[in-house]
Amino acid sequence: MADDIVLVRPIMPAADKVRRAVARVFDSGVITNDGPRVRALERQLAGRLGIPDLAVCASGTTAIQLACGALRLTGEVIVPAAAFPAVWQAVLRAGGKPVAVDVEPKHLTLDPKAVEAAITPDTCAVLGVHTFGCPADIDALTAITRRIDVPLVFDGATCWGIDYHGRPLLSYGDVATLSLHAMKLTHSVEGGAVMGNGMLVANWVRRLRNFGTGVDGALAQGTNARMSELHAAIGEVVLAESDAEITRRIRVRRWYEEGLRQINWLRVLPLRAEAGPNVAAMPILLALDAPVDATTLGQELHARGIHARAYFTGHYRPHTLRLGGPTPVTHDIADRVVCLPFWGRLTEADIARVTTALKEIDARRKGPRHAPSVHLAGRPAASVSPGAAGLGVPRGRA
Amino acid sequence: MADDIVLVRPIMPAADKVRRAVARVFDSGVITNDGPRVRALERQLAGRLGIPDLAVCASGTTAIQLACGALRLTGEVIVPAAAFPAVWQAVLRAGGKPVAVDVEPKHLTLDPKAVEAAITPDTCAVLGVHTFGCPADIDALTAITRRIDVPLVFDGATCWGIDYHGRPLLSYGDVATLSLHAMKLTHSVEGGAVMGNGMLVANWVRRLRNFGTGVDGALAQGTNARMSELHAAIGEVVLAESDAEITRRIRVRRWYEEGLRQINWLRVLPLRAEAGPNVAAMPILLALDAPVDATTLGQELHARGIHARAYFTGHYRPHTLRLGGPTPVTHDIADRVVCLPFWGRLTEADIARVTTALKEIDARRKGPRHAPSVHLAGRPAASVSPGAAGLGVPRGRA
Repeated sequence: MADDIVLVRPIMPAADKVRRAVARVFDSGVITNDGPRVRALERQLAGRLGIPDLAVCASGTTAIQLACGALRLTGEVIVPAAAFPAVWQAVLRAGGKPVAVDVEPKHLTLDPKAVEAAITPDTCAVLGVHTFGCPADIDALTAITRRIDVPLVFDGATCWGIDYHGRPLLSYGDVATLSLHAMKLTHSVEGGAVMGNGMLVANWVRRLRNFGTGVDGALAQGTNARMSELHAAIGEVVLAESDAEITRRIRVRRWYEEGLRQINWLRVLPLRAEAGPNVAAMPILLALDAPVDATTLGQELHARGIHARAYFTGHYRPHTLRLGGPTPVTHDIADRVVCLPFWGRLTEADIARVTTALKEIDARRKGPRHAPSVHLAGRPAASVSPGAAGLGVPRGRA
Repeated sequence: MADDIVLVRPIMPAADKVRRAVARVFDSGVITNDGPRVRALERQLAGRLGIPDLAVCASGTTAIQLACGALRLTGEVIVPAAAFPAVWQAVLRAGGKPVAVDVEPKHLTLDPKAVEAAITPDTCAVLGVHTFGCPADIDALTAITRRIDVPLVFDGATCWGIDYHGRPLLSYGDVATLSLHAMKLTHSVEGGAVMGNGMLVANWVRRLRNFGTGVDGALAQGTNARMSELHAAIGEVVLAESDAEITRRIRVRRWYEEGLRQINWLRVLPLRAEAGPNVAAMPILLALDAPVDATTLGQELHARGIHARAYFTGHYRPHTLRLGGPTPVTHDIADRVVCLPFWGRLTEADIARVTTALKEIDARRKGPRHAPSVHLAGRPAASVSPGAAGLGVPRGRA
């Protein structure tokens, strides 16, 4: 039995490098609270992005939270309806009011027309997401936010190593955020960063991550969202290995694109022109007449030892999220997006195993669409058949 | 020149123990996301507290936040006005409305009469703090919260190792929270824990720390507040050394109490009867006619290489916090509380150096009270003289 192919294997630096980094932290006596390793990691990340300043923090989620806190976003913040829960949760944690609008069908990023339609006098920011590494429609969103004079924030959680028009994607937007979680290309075990691009928020973030204290007292947006010296030290070691991981991922991506071309019921989600390489993830969109929905595909792959993740469905659906307009695309893609295993040490044989599994699933499912499988018990059968309005899997809140 | 005496020196396990713990985590390939080290640390902490379950998280602040989130505290939460900012900030982060009331003059914990007076139909919980390790008035607060049928939450951030009526202080209250920050007696570099005592909230906390996802979708209170496997592994090693630290701190405390007895313008804040030992901190309250205020004392000690921390003043003052009644005691103690250096490896000579420094400060300041020092420039002089209403230092919001 072959080993499982996991979704992501983090960059794991050589043991002696980890040992030296950890020993240096413990020997210094400073293991957290904004010490030298945090500041060094901040300088290295900002330097590579070519931006004036950034502040690291405990996670990609708290990066969004602190960005919103630094900008004092207590009004409505327009976010994409098809997004990881962290996005709207972080707006809430900062005291803002997330309002979700639809995404574009091709790139699954914020639909500028939907943003326009959702603007109210209480709109205080637009928070776009570079979904699975694909740039949001930066030009259109910039035009809108300039016109109504609110900040444009981009969550680029997955976007380390991706360029757009010749410079890092993370350098776009008034403020951008990054995740440094272990499953991201470069990581600090757990961590995140806030990039001050157009607006110099890094010092505000440094204050807010440490209870917002200062000579004038403690700010209401404060919390503890520091990155420890230990995590920062690992972050430095990993960062030094991230360029090699980018090279490996570009190769893995090529294998995937060749293999997946043979399967006509899915497509790899594309980047925009002038963006790339997509070293963030390997997201696929299932066709309306695909033999399986995303959840089932994930289960079928798992049964074959392949870990994939279905998005915008089930576990990730917001319990309560105010909508700023109709969200037909978000409904349309519900249970149709899957991220396949994607990391640099995958071999050509691994990718062949994934594509073979996808073909097997297709063959086994050929013919009339199956009855709802067990995990859908209790839902009306109609909700999983190709339904009215041309929506493949038009279920619930996404 | 002697080395500085720092405020707290964290337990720093022997290098080989750290090396083995870190190597085990990296060798396992699982460096975060609720792995075996997190679960092991949870079992060890719960076992030592004799409670059914607890969940660890990213920090003591997020412990309060997740506790409030798990209890769905979206109404008014009564908190002490004299508290570290994390307390009211965490209530806000969870979507609740902190309402601050006064503390008792002897123990500086929530005044039950002030709590009673602040109850409204929107009151959804009382959040007491075991300030500097001293139990809140548990009996009185329990009676109040039982009567109005709301949960009683205790922040015991500093309370590892302290018993009350023969069992761990952290086992009191419907829910209690702990900090595992490096400056606490036992620590995981950064970290916290939520104890489900009367209410079994640990599984809710496990869900909320991981975006609140579940079969029914993602909860609005979710976030990323996980503890990494790396931090948890350090936490296990440190925990194994914490009993020895408790023994050392008890000895240090005895030296302090002997030395400080000779200084009549301060008193060590006492614990309640049946509580102890106070291995959390060495907090002193300055007398109304003390030669210095807390901020100045901190500066004077720092000039002598001794790091102490003034509380309830300056940097820690809430910018915006709704009061649920008058707070004369909180005003009275503003700029009168200082935590002296307190950790197990302090020597008798270190403590003698601190007490000698305090006596020097007294001698130098003897005579008519000095004019406001530089850091108070711009404030009316009257605000630092022993003022009307018997308030020593009646300044601003605390």
